[in-house]
Amino acid sequence: MKAKIYISYKEGILDPEGNISRKALNNIGLSEVNDVRFGKYIEMTFNGVSKEKAEELTQIACEKLLANHNTETFKFEIVES
Amino acid sequence: MKAKIYISYKEGILDPEGNISRKALNNIGLSEVNDVRFGKYIEMTFNGVSKEKAEELTQIACEKLLANHNTETFKFEIVES
Repeated sequence: MKAKIYISYKEGILDPEGNISRKALNNIGLSEVNDVRFGKYIEMTFNGVSKEKAEELTQIACEKLLANHNTETFKFEIVES
Repeated sequence: MKAKIYISYKEGILDPEGNISRKALNNIGLSEVNDVRFGKYIEMTFNGVSKEKAEELTQIACEKLLANHNTETFKFEIVES
């Protein structure tokens, strides 16, 4: 099983990398770009677990290590790897 | 329109952040975690463009700025924002 995890900054949290990327994209001619927000995309694979177990483990991994719950939100999906 | 962009390291490119996260997850009891790969998840919004134009602009943004074509691959989808 494989988890695809998407971690984003919460609303209101400043994203300097996103802001500078938006400015850079505007500067190279992509004036239609209005906003850019950076986050993390994590792929995590499991050995011999069910989809339900993979969901449980991914929830724990995000809460205990991967996401900073003060500033970030996460969502994930489990797919056959 | 909004682009959801996923950038990952190419196969064979070392991912120290992923490796150290896998070890840390194993150490806190998630022994079923076999592999972790870190990438970027970027949301980019556009002012007043069609879906086709948003696809074209996102392709350019990834090629010219957001992804390092030596070490990374990207994929994206365009959704109504």
